[in-house]
Amino acid sequence: MSAIDQRLAELGLKLPEAPQPVANYVPYLLSGDQLFVSGQVAKDGMGTILTGTLGAGVSIEEGQEAARHCALNLLAQAKAALGDLSRIVQVLRLTGFVASAPDFTDHPKVINGASDLLVAVLGDAGRHTRSAVGVASLPLNACVEIDAIFKIR
Amino acid sequence: MSAIDQRLAELGLKLPEAPQPVANYVPYLLSGDQLFVSGQVAKDGMGTILTGTLGAGVSIEEGQEAARHCALNLLAQAKAALGDLSRIVQVLRLTGFVASAPDFTDHPKVINGASDLLVAVLGDAGRHTRSAVGVASLPLNACVEIDAIFKIR
Amino acid sequence: MSAIDQRLAELGLKLPEAPQPVANYVPYLLSGDQLFVSGQVAKDGMGTILTGTLGAGVSIEEGQEAARHCALNLLAQAKAALGDLSRIVQVLRLTGFVASAPDFTDHPKVINGASDLLVAVLGDAGRHTRSAVGVASLPLNACVEIDAIFKIR
Repeated sequence: MSAIDQRLAELGLKLPEAPQPVANYVPYLLSGDQLFVSGQVAKDGMGTILTGTLGAGVSIEEGQEAARHCALNLLAQAKAALGDLSRIVQVLRLTGFVASAPDFTDHPKVINGASDLLVAVLGDAGRHTRSAVGVASLPLNACVEIDAIFKIR
Repeated sequence: MSAIDQRLAELGLKLPEAPQPVANYVPYLLSGDQLFVSGQVAKDGMGTILTGTLGAGVSIEEGQEAARHCALNLLAQAKAALGDLSRIVQVLRLTGFVASAPDFTDHPKVINGASDLLVAVLGDAGRHTRSAVGVASLPLNACVEIDAIFKIR
Repeated sequence: MSAIDQRLAELGLKLPEAPQPVANYVPYLLSGDQLFVSGQVAKDGMGTILTGTLGAGVSIEEGQEAARHCALNLLAQAKAALGDLSRIVQVLRLTGFVASAPDFTDHPKVINGASDLLVAVLGDAGRHTRSAVGVASLPLNACVEIDAIFKIR
């Protein structure tokens, strides 16, 4: 068991199966020392999509939980790509898309659900640059979608 | 005629002129083995923008056709940058922005218009990671905009 | 005083303090010859967020001014990361998110506020690929948010 698998266990977290793409693309690609992971929608360990719109029925706490699942799915893809999460040198970039009402302004709190999890699991390697924006709608009515670029060894 | 030009001809496809940027930026940049291409809005071979909003008047089929034009414009830019599309090792990343009503949820089907075309033209090198999201509006009222990062040789 | 600091002074521009992230992420990361900078919202030199929605109360000119501040904040982060802006070889990519009403279509003019400033300050090194899209809402009710990838030496 790697140090990161142990950390996941200590945190009571279990990586889901790496989700299959919902269309004609691939979940991840390696290019030199970068790993690109496709946008992961908020899908829990049972395969249920967390749906709806922030500022129109979905609370910040529910959005954070959704973002946490996006991050777990990103890690599941990274594990499928790399075999071992300890090959992650750094999470370089997250782009967090939050399905939002026009007057919603707490996207940073929502995407923190993902950011906090990545730092909890990966330590300093989980610290990343990011953008968080409010979009009109997301695939499958998901309330959050996040993509990532990792630096790897 | 390169193998990819031949493939384009077999598919009955013709690359448009690489569209000029609509503002103060450049259409593409090379950096090491990566080619960054600016967001290409849905513009057909006659220069007409495919406009409107998915879920509010534009059908999924029309959106797919728009995404197909975005992909052709991405390839036209890549050809202008590289001279020969066979220098594309892999399409690393697409980000697909779909002008969407708040209740639209079929962004993946729309962006498949681009994904399917890239795989048809480039084969395995056309397989890519991607994100698809629904935005409030796009430049020139385009219904789809897609940007890309390519790995090149 | 570096050539770029001199250019900033000639343009009457002053870099703000590099803004602190509003949540659990880092403002920038270096990876090989790339510098990733987190999404910078429109915040002026006094720390005031430029708020609102294009096409619903915020004018194009106000949006351009907001984008200009995003660009200054991107440069402030780059300076904090690099020490000297002359280490920027090229601005590779901007992604410009504009808080927009569904019928707003002038995103390119808005994001030119950032593009023009980067070219004015950095010259050819400031020329970049970009995407500009209209989003439902942005953090802190900002009217513009822009992230960037730089090529550095």
